[in-house]
Amino acid sequence: MAKAWHLTSRPQGLPTRDNFALREVPDGPLDKDQMRVRNLWLSVDPYMRGRMNEAKSYAANFQIDQPMTGGAIGEVIESAMEGFAPGDLILHMGGWRDGGIIGLDMMPNKLPTEALAAGLTPQTFLHNMGLTGGTAWIGLLRIAAAKPGDTVFVSAAAGAVGSAVVQIAKAREMTVIGSAGGAEKCAWVRDLGADAVIDYKAEPVLSGLAQALRDLGKSGVDVYFDNVGGEHLDAAFAVANDFARFAICGMIDVYNDTKPQEMKYLVRAIPARIRMEGFIYTDQFIDCMEEFHADMGGLIASSAVTMRETVHDGLESAPDAFLGLFSGGNIGKMLVRL
Amino acid sequence: MAKAWHLTSRPQGLPTRDNFALREVPDGPLDKDQMRVRNLWLSVDPYMRGRMNEAKSYAANFQIDQPMTGGAIGEVIESAMEGFAPGDLILHMGGWRDGGIIGLDMMPNKLPTEALAAGLTPQTFLHNMGLTGGTAWIGLLRIAAAKPGDTVFVSAAAGAVGSAVVQIAKAREMTVIGSAGGAEKCAWVRDLGADAVIDYKAEPVLSGLAQALRDLGKSGVDVYFDNVGGEHLDAAFAVANDFARFAICGMIDVYNDTKPQEMKYLVRAIPARIRMEGFIYTDQFIDCMEEFHADMGGLIASSAVTMRETVHDGLESAPDAFLGLFSGGNIGKMLVRL
Repeated sequence: MAKAWHLTSRPQGLPTRDNFALREVPDGPLDKDQMRVRNLWLSVDPYMRGRMNEAKSYAANFQIDQPMTGGAIGEVIESAMEGFAPGDLILHMGGWRDGGIIGLDMMPNKLPTEALAAGLTPQTFLHNMGLTGGTAWIGLLRIAAAKPGDTVFVSAAAGAVGSAVVQIAKAREMTVIGSAGGAEKCAWVRDLGADAVIDYKAEPVLSGLAQALRDLGKSGVDVYFDNVGGEHLDAAFAVANDFARFAICGMIDVYNDTKPQEMKYLVRAIPARIRMEGFIYTDQFIDCMEEFHADMGGLIASSAVTMRETVHDGLESAPDAFLGLFSGGNIGKMLVRL
Repeated sequence: MAKAWHLTSRPQGLPTRDNFALREVPDGPLDKDQMRVRNLWLSVDPYMRGRMNEAKSYAANFQIDQPMTGGAIGEVIESAMEGFAPGDLILHMGGWRDGGIIGLDMMPNKLPTEALAAGLTPQTFLHNMGLTGGTAWIGLLRIAAAKPGDTVFVSAAAGAVGSAVVQIAKAREMTVIGSAGGAEKCAWVRDLGADAVIDYKAEPVLSGLAQALRDLGKSGVDVYFDNVGGEHLDAAFAVANDFARFAICGMIDVYNDTKPQEMKYLVRAIPARIRMEGFIYTDQFIDCMEEFHADMGGLIASSAVTMRETVHDGLESAPDAFLGLFSGGNIGKMLVRL
């Protein structure tokens, strides 16, 4: 019998294990357009925090006492869905569970066999070739319209999205300043090619950013890719060049926080004519999916874009993996391996 | 001998009369491309506050112990500049003074005689046909890309820019919610055609805005035209519809304030995909000058756009007129008549 993590109560502030319970999910014979799947990899992502709230977010809310969903890689065991056969590896939204019955509402897609044959691991479609890589690519190149020669500041640069931004920007001949927490993460961001790295746990973001700009001989930042909000966002407003573009992807600093963000430099939006734009992957993805896959596939094949994975083992570990996203527990992409 | 207001010290926070001194300016025979001018009307505008700072703003800083500059309407007394003759009425940047020698650096332009003959007053070129009207038109229609059917929220709606925004938006069949301070200003904003008006001195902006939206049967705002920043901006983030556009024109609440702005709803930029963009008139004006003049001229001729003026008399009153901008002292456009 397949099991799935259910949301049992809505978190106030930071979620805890008590908000989740592992329960069996209904089984039985397949209807038309259903498959039975065994999951291999589950994705946990910061955006899921918003789905745990009562209030409407951009993704549908999780319902209380219902199984949660999210990105997953599974193997088809039995199929009543045309085009899918046992043994196929699929990307689908029936995550937070070890398997079970998957329908069209879980948006199953076969992983491209040529990409797998060329050496891409299946879980790459949960990060660089999927949600997080696509978010990085769209935010940097489409929303912020970053171009060669730009100076780009990226927060949470050791995270799944941020590390992809760093590498895509370097592959496009931009100057990159990344921010991460702690020596190990900062060293990895530098290894990814960032021109300067700020350890936000060791110094105020704004002083680190100002120093990095001086060291690089740059007047300010042209692009800010925000994963964090709060102090990082304010520092970006402080040092933005004229006509800077901010792609607002996430504000992990404030998702669990009901305090206001204290913005001292927001007023620079006017003299510097800053454009700030919030975006989500799913709005943009259809339009640029083909270009993204071709471009990102090439960058991965040439090793211009790589990924570190932080792996938790076993379905039982899924809530801990998720909670780790909010305590800086991951380098690169946080995954659960079943 | 002509006199001009000089900046004698840089204000900390709110400026005071002590930051200014009225002094004589050099006189003498005209060089080529110079004119002698008698000023009739002077403009005082919130953006001038930024020019009083040491730090770079979008307009060049005022220099200590030098005459200040700004929009003015003058009459040519004597001319050594081709195309200008005594008796011509001109718009130029040699404001904050009663007259004197004006060169090309003060960007003199003759007022169109056909517009004056049709009944437009000269000082209209300091407001609806000039800086403030152009700022309203560009911010609403170009930066925020507002379109018929949109719900538009405007702060400082009884100010020179805000009142033009209200009227342009109504002429374009938008629903308009304005915010102003006090019963008299609110009544005028309603007279201008606003569908709802919030008195921010009588109630918190967010509760007023939420109530106005309920009364109008609207889900939220599509466009926010910001003249104020702070509480108004945060309230706009709170009630923004998906894909809302914020044109950030001014933040008069924070120009004189070194406290951080407390933003509780900025995080909604992501789920609602809000685009916020700071802009200044001079960047955009060249591109759309012709269209603006034709469109705004028509709106003024048909009385779809009107203006109230708050007039101070005499050069001596210029600092008081300017300081009044920051204490809510004006309805409509603040002017100094000489």
